[in-house]
Amino acid sequence: MKRTRLIVFTALAVLVLALSALAQTDPLASWNDGSAKQAIVDFVRATTDQSSPKFVPPEERIATFDQDGTLWVEHPMYTQVMYCLERVRPLVEKKPKLKKVEPFKTVFSGNREAMAKFSMKDLEKILAATLTGMSVDEFNAAVKKWFETAKDPRWKRPYTELTYLPMQEVLSYLRTNGYKTYIVTGGGQDFVRVYSERVYGIPPEQVVGTAGATKYSYAKDGKPFLTKEPKLLLNDDNAGKPEGIHLMIGRRPYAAFGNSTGDRQMLEYTKAGDGGRLAMLVLHDDAKREYAYGPAQGLPDTKVGTFTQALYDEAKKDGWVVISMKNDWKHIFAFEQ
Amino acid sequence: MKRTRLIVFTALAVLVLALSALAQTDPLASWNDGSAKQAIVDFVRATTDQSSPKFVPPEERIATFDQDGTLWVEHPMYTQVMYCLERVRPLVEKKPKLKKVEPFKTVFSGNREAMAKFSMKDLEKILAATLTGMSVDEFNAAVKKWFETAKDPRWKRPYTELTYLPMQEVLSYLRTNGYKTYIVTGGGQDFVRVYSERVYGIPPEQVVGTAGATKYSYAKDGKPFLTKEPKLLLNDDNAGKPEGIHLMIGRRPYAAFGNSTGDRQMLEYTKAGDGGRLAMLVLHDDAKREYAYGPAQGLPDTKVGTFTQALYDEAKKDGWVVISMKNDWKHIFAFEQ
Repeated sequence: MKRTRLIVFTALAVLVLALSALAQTDPLASWNDGSAKQAIVDFVRATTDQSSPKFVPPEERIATFDQDGTLWVEHPMYTQVMYCLERVRPLVEKKPKLKKVEPFKTVFSGNREAMAKFSMKDLEKILAATLTGMSVDEFNAAVKKWFETAKDPRWKRPYTELTYLPMQEVLSYLRTNGYKTYIVTGGGQDFVRVYSERVYGIPPEQVVGTAGATKYSYAKDGKPFLTKEPKLLLNDDNAGKPEGIHLMIGRRPYAAFGNSTGDRQMLEYTKAGDGGRLAMLVLHDDAKREYAYGPAQGLPDTKVGTFTQALYDEAKKDGWVVISMKNDWKHIFAFEQ
Repeated sequence: MKRTRLIVFTALAVLVLALSALAQTDPLASWNDGSAKQAIVDFVRATTDQSSPKFVPPEERIATFDQDGTLWVEHPMYTQVMYCLERVRPLVEKKPKLKKVEPFKTVFSGNREAMAKFSMKDLEKILAATLTGMSVDEFNAAVKKWFETAKDPRWKRPYTELTYLPMQEVLSYLRTNGYKTYIVTGGGQDFVRVYSERVYGIPPEQVVGTAGATKYSYAKDGKPFLTKEPKLLLNDDNAGKPEGIHLMIGRRPYAAFGNSTGDRQMLEYTKAGDGGRLAMLVLHDDAKREYAYGPAQGLPDTKVGTFTQALYDEAKKDGWVVISMKNDWKHIFAFEQ
């Protein structure tokens, strides 16, 4: 009897210690204390505590995240645009006629200065040629292969390591509290789906992005397959984000995260719902550890991920929370630690 | 000590009994023993047993179900078409000019014989007028309200009670075994999403259907809202089903269920994947308890839910399993029991 008691007491003591250790682990350890971190914690408490007037039933807990500039680095160029430019060479080798046709000629020449001057139409031609006209399986395999060797020029690391650790913590924290996390990106839906599960723990069916049509047909052996067509179904940016959320999810998010004017409508739509809603914007104000661009708050204006002063003012007026990378984030990347 | 032992033994005995009761409850109790029921049980075993060569990791377990004629009654008319026809009256009362314009004039007159002769173009006009041009919230409220009173003319019950009990069991059985269940319907995505969670336990984000564009704009008070536009994005029938699955889910299903030629490509696409895949077709051969139509196997040809002999032959050739409502289903509806 004495021995049994001892075992029970020991087991209980271990359990209590383990539970209190669990309780003390900060799920947002890479965040500095401040209003941004507090807003996230307050939102989760208010929407998951059954006694709270803002309680949200588990099945309605939806949180949406922009990708480029919100979950990972978008500078100096979107990763997907890097992919498309690097796919031009194998494409031209397969179809040598393209070597004489712009904008492929310029890309093939490797003249970065000329590439920087590409018009929207030039880019569209490159995107159409490198993202469509092949089967879904071929496309997935090509993207997967590219990510195995491609590296960001500044950090010399695979692009998939350039995700923001504090945002990875937000994703996990929300999921632990019953939220379904979605990516809602202006980037290609099929492109992001290739790595979303591995990189963010977000399955392909929870990626909403710019999407084209596919075409069902049969191979010679009778097996059906889908071909990616150069026909746009959803331009998932600006107003296209709430429209895409309705198409793909059919529920209004309770929390939404972005970093540029392309996310404005998604955040407006999220905040316009009843009860407790969280809207947050990442401000890239850390030139040393990442990049500083805006042009909100006098930051330099760049082509990629524009955060205007008007967006900043709307955020302040409507109770969206601006995250300062410089002040709110203890660490930016997991590899820094 | 003696008392403690007694309590422990009693608790263990209760547990063992409870577990064995659980194990003995047939998850497919409304199915007669036979090859159809066996195919479902075999599929689940093969794909969820870790030691099976056909084991499927939980995150990849996707099963897709057509709705009309597969999960609930589609005769004599799709429920959504009933909704649209019944919405014409309030619409004409709001816009009296329509009273003189076909096909609204005929619907308003109540002449069922004339309505049965409507062309595809007539129906499209009615669908566009009753399913678009209002906000998403207004549409959802109208559909929800309609279902509260609308009744099927034969059974005099709400349409949402006319789901097939054996298929509800399949949905639950698959979910219990880690499958994410999706509806993939030629019907309106927004329409089905209104009741999918309540009726099938399938959340709105797991409903893929025929979908139109929405338009984001602002009300006078500055609040944003989405309007349903008469612009088709996805015609989720025939080849549109695998295309819709790719768009909305991004993974190939391991199991797919249908009942008509509109489901052919979804089943082909499902079966074309590696490993263990299940494709099933419900054959409506039970004129007494439900309806009998085809025209496979000499059943009468009707406009709704066509199951051709060619589809039947493809099923037999490619190892799809045909479910005979008459022979495989012990009960059809829950209210029958």
